[in-house]
Amino acid sequence: MGIENASSNKVYGGWQKQYTHPSNVLGCDMRFAIFLPPQAGNGTKVPVMYWLSGLTCTDENFMQKAGAFRLAAELGIAIVAPDTSPRGDHVPDDENEAYDFGKGAGFYVNATQEPWARNYRMYDYVTKELPSLIKDHFPVSDDAVISGHSMGGHGALMIALRNPGTFKSVTAFSPICNPINCPWGQKALGNYLGDDKSMWKAWDSSELMKSATAPDAQTPALVDQGDADGFLAEQLKPEVLEAAAKSSSYPLTVRMQDGYDHSYYFISSFIEDHIRFHAKHLGLS
Amino acid sequence: MGIENASSNKVYGGWQKQYTHPSNVLGCDMRFAIFLPPQAGNGTKVPVMYWLSGLTCTDENFMQKAGAFRLAAELGIAIVAPDTSPRGDHVPDDENEAYDFGKGAGFYVNATQEPWARNYRMYDYVTKELPSLIKDHFPVSDDAVISGHSMGGHGALMIALRNPGTFKSVTAFSPICNPINCPWGQKALGNYLGDDKSMWKAWDSSELMKSATAPDAQTPALVDQGDADGFLAEQLKPEVLEAAAKSSSYPLTVRMQDGYDHSYYFISSFIEDHIRFHAKHLGLS
Repeated sequence: MGIENASSNKVYGGWQKQYTHPSNVLGCDMRFAIFLPPQAGNGTKVPVMYWLSGLTCTDENFMQKAGAFRLAAELGIAIVAPDTSPRGDHVPDDENEAYDFGKGAGFYVNATQEPWARNYRMYDYVTKELPSLIKDHFPVSDDAVISGHSMGGHGALMIALRNPGTFKSVTAFSPICNPINCPWGQKALGNYLGDDKSMWKAWDSSELMKSATAPDAQTPALVDQGDADGFLAEQLKPEVLEAAAKSSSYPLTVRMQDGYDHSYYFISSFIEDHIRFHAKHLGLS
Repeated sequence: MGIENASSNKVYGGWQKQYTHPSNVLGCDMRFAIFLPPQAGNGTKVPVMYWLSGLTCTDENFMQKAGAFRLAAELGIAIVAPDTSPRGDHVPDDENEAYDFGKGAGFYVNATQEPWARNYRMYDYVTKELPSLIKDHFPVSDDAVISGHSMGGHGALMIALRNPGTFKSVTAFSPICNPINCPWGQKALGNYLGDDKSMWKAWDSSELMKSATAPDAQTPALVDQGDADGFLAEQLKPEVLEAAAKSSSYPLTVRMQDGYDHSYYFISSFIEDHIRFHAKHLGLS
């Protein structure tokens, strides 16, 4: 499948590039961003970190604001940031263009309900089509890790839990830990998956973590959460994820960070910790 | 004079905050951003780096994209980022709202021509009103340094050259080095200062540097310039600044950086070098 370069910026000795491509899975054209560290320049295959962004974001937010390149360049880790939903004039959107559903809010699930089922298949896009595309076009090894923020933190944890062995480690900032029990999650899952709540649990990290008891079902996980995050109590619920981890002896560390909010200022403050966590599990340090 | 807090985000153990205030100098309300490192939290006075942004920017670009906080927090340096022009519905703007003149393009000069002379006095704002405001409201010492990008690189160099002894060091990314001889500069200086080109030279870093021969007129200077910057040949002209420095034995280092462009990806790649350069001249390292 073809990809087309849309932008290139040299950064920290490597390159941040955007590409567009037709997505069969999503039925629309998509754009993603990739950071290639200097080590990839000579054809060496490098490990890759997938970054899933939050509500309203695109492939650009992390690349512009996270401050991840200094350490990723030093350690030789590529970073891939997909968009957060299908895009295009023919793709259905929330009737009020709400920020928390439809475009910019794909929630990393495969929709089963009309009119969403044709395009809103971000789970298959992020777990199958995009990694295949990345391997075909860039010098990345099979060693992958995954991270995300807010809706993307839900995505990262949920995808790691549904795909044991695929990722060496998973981290999240301010993730939506229990979407079946918060307003953002209930709106999205109800619309994408329908009213039968039993169908929602397969996409809920806290539910998945409860039953991830086998050692080979457990991907080491790190979560950072700011205690001044205005969404903490109603939407994010890290305490539910922690309880799930406790019940299944899951290797999860949740760190409450004093005074931090939900913004990229928070992410940039701890992104190097997350990259070092991944580097350890990738055997880079 | 009063200032009003508009936003606060904890970052790297310190705080990024925005404030609004009425500006007497500019005749309008202004917003600036300040990063306060953790060391400022206990009342210790910290040195301050002024950052002047480029065309189209506001106080936000550097704070969101530069990746400066990791090292500024470690070394204990505050950062102040003003806006790039006067603002407000009553402030005159380019008739076509061009990106390179009027709002977002104050060029850090004091305009003498109508209708610009009342509001477009960014030089006095950045060198007098804003530093006074900062000292009144924040725990900063008298130790200051100054940096900027593109139009703001011109501003940083020009302001350091016109105010010997005020800044311990000056750095710039992709500065407009010789505005009297490039299209951006000629448009701005012609409109703000009038047709008499002899009046322009007092705002041109290359002209100022030529005559800065006395040791106490020389502020150590570092310039980084990407050689893949599309504005390099026509607008930026670092070779003119280098020639001026050679003629006056000015302590200027210009580094051409292979493959880098005009973007914040470039700035973020070398901002830590600039902060370390300042730290050395501030006696911090």
